[in-house]
Amino acid sequence: MTERRRRIVLARRPRGLPVADDFDLLESDAPEPADGEVLTRTVYLTLDPYMRGAMDDAESYDDPIPLGGVIVGATVGEVLASRHDGVSEGDIVEVHGGWQSHAVAPGGAVRKIDASLAPVSTALGVLGMPGLTAHHGLLKVGEPRPGETVFVSAASGAVGATVGQIARIVGCRVAGCAGSDEKVAYCLEDCGFDACFNHRTCDDIAGALRAACPDGIDVNFENVGGEIARAATMQLNEHGRMAVCGTISNYNATDPELVPDPLWWHIVRRIRVQGFLVTDYADDDESARAELAGWIADGRMTWRETFVDGLENAPAAFNRLFEGGNFGKLIVRVGDDPTAG
Amino acid sequence: MTERRRRIVLARRPRGLPVADDFDLLESDAPEPADGEVLTRTVYLTLDPYMRGAMDDAESYDDPIPLGGVIVGATVGEVLASRHDGVSEGDIVEVHGGWQSHAVAPGGAVRKIDASLAPVSTALGVLGMPGLTAHHGLLKVGEPRPGETVFVSAASGAVGATVGQIARIVGCRVAGCAGSDEKVAYCLEDCGFDACFNHRTCDDIAGALRAACPDGIDVNFENVGGEIARAATMQLNEHGRMAVCGTISNYNATDPELVPDPLWWHIVRRIRVQGFLVTDYADDDESARAELAGWIADGRMTWRETFVDGLENAPAAFNRLFEGGNFGKLIVRVGDDPTAG
Repeated sequence: MTERRRRIVLARRPRGLPVADDFDLLESDAPEPADGEVLTRTVYLTLDPYMRGAMDDAESYDDPIPLGGVIVGATVGEVLASRHDGVSEGDIVEVHGGWQSHAVAPGGAVRKIDASLAPVSTALGVLGMPGLTAHHGLLKVGEPRPGETVFVSAASGAVGATVGQIARIVGCRVAGCAGSDEKVAYCLEDCGFDACFNHRTCDDIAGALRAACPDGIDVNFENVGGEIARAATMQLNEHGRMAVCGTISNYNATDPELVPDPLWWHIVRRIRVQGFLVTDYADDDESARAELAGWIADGRMTWRETFVDGLENAPAAFNRLFEGGNFGKLIVRVGDDPTAG
Repeated sequence: MTERRRRIVLARRPRGLPVADDFDLLESDAPEPADGEVLTRTVYLTLDPYMRGAMDDAESYDDPIPLGGVIVGATVGEVLASRHDGVSEGDIVEVHGGWQSHAVAPGGAVRKIDASLAPVSTALGVLGMPGLTAHHGLLKVGEPRPGETVFVSAASGAVGATVGQIARIVGCRVAGCAGSDEKVAYCLEDCGFDACFNHRTCDDIAGALRAACPDGIDVNFENVGGEIARAATMQLNEHGRMAVCGTISNYNATDPELVPDPLWWHIVRRIRVQGFLVTDYADDDESARAELAGWIADGRMTWRETFVDGLENAPAAFNRLFEGGNFGKLIVRVGDDPTAG
């Protein structure tokens, strides 16, 4: 029996926040895997902010998605057919399947998921790219030392909440900001932040930041950019570090934002600003994932997911990332999860 | 016999480029050294851009000079009287004497100069703070690897010319920009730069930079800020480094300059921006100075000085640093040099 494949492709390049007409939903027979390939049925599709950059035709760290191409993204899939040694029908794997119900991939590019560690959806969150981003970025780029203050923006997000918890585990004071009172409460109560404020209801970001970080900031893990990033930069202590992970506040901007030139301030405080990608540290993925899984096993690390049902709802759900309507890791449930209890 | 001391003090805080009325020249008897102190007669006074920041009452890495206080600065002096073991009358020392003809300092804060290495004025240049700034900043902050491209702005200056020569010695391709054709020729012919352009006569900074650095820039040693800094940032290669030493183009600015927010670009190219001060690496001063002296001894390192005679001319000479009228290390000859041939 040939399965039918549904896929969401880029119909045109978005201007600002994507709209429905920027995408097409196509349907056709699922492809067959060639020698060395596997065919997966998508169970979960992650939605991450970086995908917005790949929809543009500007220089970025990813190649632009071609017009008519499937939107990129990591997925958790069930292997329907394998022509690659070491991957078997029925395996649950992480694969860069994109926004589609079925994907064919080289067998060497899929990673088998150990369902005994945590629900398999976490392969897209705390035990996947966002968790590794937090781990590599905080520990290798931010280099926090015990007793220092770590500040993280978008603190309840898939990356931010993991950053905050790792910072707490390694002995730092942890502060953050998030976009709703419910998210703030989650950071404080579930993730163990020492301080967190709601940046949407706060009319003095710099003042709230000073109150949250009375000893200044030693490591700023930057997810947002814009006003919050500038306030955090101004409150970095001498020899402070800024791990630049994302600038979601301007991913839909059509004109560059102008800011006061920060270079002189970098000298005054001897600040190190380092942009990074999770893939820069891929050699350390497995050790970092093992450490994260250990913290989950001993109850020191939690996570939060929001599920949206149906591939066809991916475009609308995607915009929640930019409008604050999402909480934790945003995941599209594309098909049945055979591991779900 | 009591010597007369002349000193230049801050009469008021400059707005923009300093003017004569911002300073007073006072005269009084020279002080006597107390126990543990030495009295020096100033031979050479260095003029450095950082002094402009210390004239302001804004947060910087230096405390502001108080109104009525002597303008700060390193000097080469002859010891007239010493009440500190290990420093003797007649010694030639480096001391933070400031803009005055005589200074009293703790004996532990003076450094005896080895006149056999080079003319003692180089204790204020290539073998002093500017040379150490270049050495620490390029090698420890920029971390250039052989075969990489290093770009340095203000390339004929006391710091820039040393940066370029060190980069050449460690096996890098070296490019720079300077503010006159004569300075450009000095960088190319005397300092061994591979490329250098005149940024004052160039109407396309980005284009000139591309031509000077056809393989992009791996390390940008930033002395200037502003348009040149932005062009260099945009041409940094992946994993490029920016050692931020100074932003002289805006030291006299009365309003902050607005620039396109660079954070996203830092991610795209995985750029590391690091502000630094020479004093951050003081533990390595002696080893760095020895290395610089070795390069001078074997003919691989040159330097250039411009002398101005008379302490009273320091304020007018100081502005040359910002107007491009200086060439190499700017030094005021305050008194006779007993080591001069």
